[in-house]
Amino acid sequence: MMKRVSSGIGGLDDMMEGGFPEGDNILLTGPPGSGKTTLALQFLVNGILKSGQKGLYIEAGEKLDKIIEHVERFGWDLRRLQDEGRLLMLSPQIRPEEGEDPMQWITRKEVHELVDQFKPERVAVDSLSLLLQHSREPGGHRRGVQRVIDSFHMDCTTLFVSELAHVYPDRLDYTTEEFIADGIINMYYQRDGNVFERFLAILKMRGTNHSRRVTHFTLEDKAGIIVHSEIFEKQ
Amino acid sequence: MMKRVSSGIGGLDDMMEGGFPEGDNILLTGPPGSGKTTLALQFLVNGILKSGQKGLYIEAGEKLDKIIEHVERFGWDLRRLQDEGRLLMLSPQIRPEEGEDPMQWITRKEVHELVDQFKPERVAVDSLSLLLQHSREPGGHRRGVQRVIDSFHMDCTTLFVSELAHVYPDRLDYTTEEFIADGIINMYYQRDGNVFERFLAILKMRGTNHSRRVTHFTLEDKAGIIVHSEIFEKQ
Amino acid sequence: MMKRVSSGIGGLDDMMEGGFPEGDNILLTGPPGSGKTTLALQFLVNGILKSGQKGLYIEAGEKLDKIIEHVERFGWDLRRLQDEGRLLMLSPQIRPEEGEDPMQWITRKEVHELVDQFKPERVAVDSLSLLLQHSREPGGHRRGVQRVIDSFHMDCTTLFVSELAHVYPDRLDYTTEEFIADGIINMYYQRDGNVFERFLAILKMRGTNHSRRVTHFTLEDKAGIIVHSEIFEKQ
Amino acid sequence: MMKRVSSGIGGLDDMMEGGFPEGDNILLTGPPGSGKTTLALQFLVNGILKSGQKGLYIEAGEKLDKIIEHVERFGWDLRRLQDEGRLLMLSPQIRPEEGEDPMQWITRKEVHELVDQFKPERVAVDSLSLLLQHSREPGGHRRGVQRVIDSFHMDCTTLFVSELAHVYPDRLDYTTEEFIADGIINMYYQRDGNVFERFLAILKMRGTNHSRRVTHFTLEDKAGIIVHSEIFEKQ
Amino acid sequence: MMKRVSSGIGGLDDMMEGGFPEGDNILLTGPPGSGKTTLALQFLVNGILKSGQKGLYIEAGEKLDKIIEHVERFGWDLRRLQDEGRLLMLSPQIRPEEGEDPMQWITRKEVHELVDQFKPERVAVDSLSLLLQHSREPGGHRRGVQRVIDSFHMDCTTLFVSELAHVYPDRLDYTTEEFIADGIINMYYQRDGNVFERFLAILKMRGTNHSRRVTHFTLEDKAGIIVHSEIFEKQ
Amino acid sequence: MMKRVSSGIGGLDDMMEGGFPEGDNILLTGPPGSGKTTLALQFLVNGILKSGQKGLYIEAGEKLDKIIEHVERFGWDLRRLQDEGRLLMLSPQIRPEEGEDPMQWITRKEVHELVDQFKPERVAVDSLSLLLQHSREPGGHRRGVQRVIDSFHMDCTTLFVSELAHVYPDRLDYTTEEFIADGIINMYYQRDGNVFERFLAILKMRGTNHSRRVTHFTLEDKAGIIVHSEIFEKQ
Repeated sequence: MMKRVSSGIGGLDDMMEGGFPEGDNILLTGPPGSGKTTLALQFLVNGILKSGQKGLYIEAGEKLDKIIEHVERFGWDLRRLQDEGRLLMLSPQIRPEEGEDPMQWITRKEVHELVDQFKPERVAVDSLSLLLQHSREPGGHRRGVQRVIDSFHMDCTTLFVSELAHVYPDRLDYTTEEFIADGIINMYYQRDGNVFERFLAILKMRGTNHSRRVTHFTLEDKAGIIVHSEIFEKQ
Repeated sequence: MMKRVSSGIGGLDDMMEGGFPEGDNILLTGPPGSGKTTLALQFLVNGILKSGQKGLYIEAGEKLDKIIEHVERFGWDLRRLQDEGRLLMLSPQIRPEEGEDPMQWITRKEVHELVDQFKPERVAVDSLSLLLQHSREPGGHRRGVQRVIDSFHMDCTTLFVSELAHVYPDRLDYTTEEFIADGIINMYYQRDGNVFERFLAILKMRGTNHSRRVTHFTLEDKAGIIVHSEIFEKQ
Repeated sequence: MMKRVSSGIGGLDDMMEGGFPEGDNILLTGPPGSGKTTLALQFLVNGILKSGQKGLYIEAGEKLDKIIEHVERFGWDLRRLQDEGRLLMLSPQIRPEEGEDPMQWITRKEVHELVDQFKPERVAVDSLSLLLQHSREPGGHRRGVQRVIDSFHMDCTTLFVSELAHVYPDRLDYTTEEFIADGIINMYYQRDGNVFERFLAILKMRGTNHSRRVTHFTLEDKAGIIVHSEIFEKQ
Repeated sequence: MMKRVSSGIGGLDDMMEGGFPEGDNILLTGPPGSGKTTLALQFLVNGILKSGQKGLYIEAGEKLDKIIEHVERFGWDLRRLQDEGRLLMLSPQIRPEEGEDPMQWITRKEVHELVDQFKPERVAVDSLSLLLQHSREPGGHRRGVQRVIDSFHMDCTTLFVSELAHVYPDRLDYTTEEFIADGIINMYYQRDGNVFERFLAILKMRGTNHSRRVTHFTLEDKAGIIVHSEIFEKQ
Repeated sequence: MMKRVSSGIGGLDDMMEGGFPEGDNILLTGPPGSGKTTLALQFLVNGILKSGQKGLYIEAGEKLDKIIEHVERFGWDLRRLQDEGRLLMLSPQIRPEEGEDPMQWITRKEVHELVDQFKPERVAVDSLSLLLQHSREPGGHRRGVQRVIDSFHMDCTTLFVSELAHVYPDRLDYTTEEFIADGIINMYYQRDGNVFERFLAILKMRGTNHSRRVTHFTLEDKAGIIVHSEIFEKQ
Repeated sequence: MMKRVSSGIGGLDDMMEGGFPEGDNILLTGPPGSGKTTLALQFLVNGILKSGQKGLYIEAGEKLDKIIEHVERFGWDLRRLQDEGRLLMLSPQIRPEEGEDPMQWITRKEVHELVDQFKPERVAVDSLSLLLQHSREPGGHRRGVQRVIDSFHMDCTTLFVSELAHVYPDRLDYTTEEFIADGIINMYYQRDGNVFERFLAILKMRGTNHSRRVTHFTLEDKAGIIVHSEIFEKQ
């Protein structure tokens, strides 16, 4: 029996037999403004509050302060969780004088010792795309994705945020991220008349009899993402 | 409680809980002729006149005189605001004999001293696309966007104009600008019979329960942009 | 109050508060055979005949004789206007022995002295695309467009013909020409049953409350372009 | 009054005030099998038989014998016309030992002396695309097109066959060939139920009030192209 | 009479005269989450259990443990099959100190001796795309595909998983994999209202009068893929 | 009167005045699994059996044994025809120690002596795409296509298989193969409800009043391709 890790969102857990397979790498894709960062943080926050699991958040854009402020409306006090030692938020602290870039930072020994000490059970990388855009490493995208994944692939379940939107199955080429992910959740908005409504769909979840339904969700104060899943119907 | 900075347009403020989150970087995208420059200047002018906040306008196309003349019809006297020391308008003054380009100008020490003395609370960069097209800096687009943003990311709220149009959520790739912006407003025109009508939509606004409605707007003499927002409806 | 320069076409002037803003750079885009050269010449010819303003025509394809013959049917005697010193028609006279190209010709000292003496109030460059295709200058397209514009940006209103068609607002990328133009008029044909009808639309005209209507036009003997604009309706 | 050169096809002449403008360069575009070679040869053959004008045919694919055989069914005896000195058919005779390519052949002195002696009034180049594909000349496509055109631009009317299909006016980029042609005729087929029917349209014809109608045509034994033009209606 | 190898899925065998042609190379294409890995493993597992044929599984992503766990729900005990010597699962064991990559590993002598000893009758390579992305070999994609195929092309029937989706026959370019495969099965999902349903189609199967029907399938616990083929109808 | 060579398929001959023009190069295009190899072999086999014409088959993928087996179901005994000296099947026998590639093999002296002795009247090259993908020859695709064609362009009618699908006439660019072919037959499948049906269309056949109808065909045991052409209707 495979162990499940709650996504922190009840309606989403219902769509995938109770949660993500423990230890898997999940890709969270969607256009800007589709709610990816919110889902990633909700996964960490509820892991801490409801399951007592420590969370690590890697932010590639160097804007931790802003992010903390932006999610206050959902009732999440990220500063307090950090003070209590239950949440670790990192953004690349680069040594430019040594020509270092974020990819090199992430594989640096001190960073790994820090992470090894913290022992997170949940990790969110926000975003893989930004982290790779920074990189000057030769050998390109593929090796970069693998290195980031290897860096944090201990005993934790990891969400990778990626700037991609691909709801339509007639696409002909897929990215490296999509090849190697154990699961893919797509978040997007769809125009309904003159209003953009929010939706998510689980496109892939290995070892899981997941819902294949396109499901409406909203962002609510003091709550975060609420998934309005209908009755779960088996595929 | 997050502080809000009025956009200078009542109907638009209503769509985003009162204004832009203070200190955020907002991307203003749309095709040529969609009203981006007008919105950027209206943000500065009304900030000066209604909130007493100083404004800085960076123009990459070296046509400040023309722009001043073009917006006179909206009742904006940019020359007077400059004379009063409430508005600072800059366009790249390059030292070609030193092989300098606009990106280098923007990071030059004298420019920063000028800006530091002026202490603007609102900034508009018009346009990011032109500024980057000028650039000869190696390392490309990504680093350039970051450098421009870092240059003016003090305590001010900044609008970045960008030549992009992306209303449709089925797009598969997003630009660096879109990844790193805290908010994105798309302005565009849509053919209705034989007439192109103007619309705007807020695609993203971190920390904000913003309207997701596609909203009609017009340009009016002595006023500028008027947003014809319906009653605000929560998402 | 902004000064207006008649386009030489009554129906088009009605669509833009009386004419182009004086001194502006206007982009004229459309597919081959859409009437761009005709509009550019009509702007010059009527400027000479009706407003007494001298006109300069830069032709990049080295076919001045043919063009003169082709527009005779509209009743325009370009040879006589040249003889009377009211029209100057130039095409690149390159010094191949010096490795010169059209871009270098256009910035050559003799050319500028010639233009300075002539003092045109209206200029048409036909076409920007051809002029740039010739160019061997490093630094590419962007710098080339700027150099051509700078070369003739004295006190004259200038039409730049460009081989582009972009009526649909869902396009995602725009060219340098479109970024830096003060106005854009798109000319095109649209299939109506089995017949291609001619249309034009003003996509952008800074400082102008222009019509946003897609408007039918025809080419008529002894007249040139006739715009069949309906009653002007404000946007 | 502009002189006209009959296209050799009555229905097509009716669509363009009697024929091509004398001395102009006309582009004939369309997919493989759309009838371009047939129209080009019909222009030459009928010029010889009906107007007594000598014709030059440049074939870039080195298959003159096959082409002669393929058009026999239309009643055209190209061998006899050649024997009578009224038709000259050339294909590149390259000197590989000198590293020569077709573009160099076409500008070779002997070729020009041959053409100068023959004094054709009508020329067909079939095809421009193949001729340019052969070329190893640096400086690329644009200069190549210009050189071919310059080579034969004496006092003759010239048809350039080009492998392009562009009936739809919403295309955004045009080729060099299309920029510099005085006229463009597009030939294509369109699926009507399960059958591909043949059509042509004049997209551009400088100095000509041409039909803008998409017109059906067929290929008939002992005749060649028959254009089924309706009554000519002015645009 | 051509020998057939059961696919391990009854409904799929019915669609292709009883199974894959023995010894052929079959391409399995589809987007992430379409069930390719499941089909590849079901082919091996049922080959072992029902036909007593040994199976070799090459996994390019270095996640054998996870894959074993993910398919437990289908009732497949891959660890036991390995212990019994009926299944061999390999993933690239690279010697980085020698600059080796997965392509070089796959052609290494020890690997081939291992495979030669094991004598598999069925092989699955999951996935060809990942294996090639790893490769640093010059000469590119084409030679790489050929080398992988040659490496395992003994007397076994081989499934190659490939990240491609191409249900629509109006595509204009095909990949090397598609050129050289003896058979192609496409797996994909299609949106039906708000639910993504699973489908497969046999696009090509040399020497086989295969079904050309798009067929629905599901993933079922204790079973794996169940193909809901209607009554087989001849093309 | 042009000589015709039967295609080996009655219904197809009816669509093109009795067969291919003798000595012409015909391009056979379509997606994988569309029946191109079957048509190419049927052309050879029926040429041998019904017209007593010897056939040469060039296979670029080095799988002659498989191909022989795959077409047995159509009743074709390719081994016997080879033994009787009526069919010659070749695949590239490369001398890698000399750095040779398939293109060089095809132009090697021994190969040409072999072919010269055999004197085939019908040739099939399967496929041109694969042959060119192998090639390392500088000068690229165009020269390669020409060299293959020249190699076998004796007195025989040749079918070139090419991996392309282009039924729709609104395509804007065509390949070298399409420019230089005397005829083009497109084979494809089209989804009709949930079933892919097979179709072919003659897009081009020089010197031939060919059907322009999209025609259904099937593959039948003991027969091969059967074209279900309706009554032939003239274009």
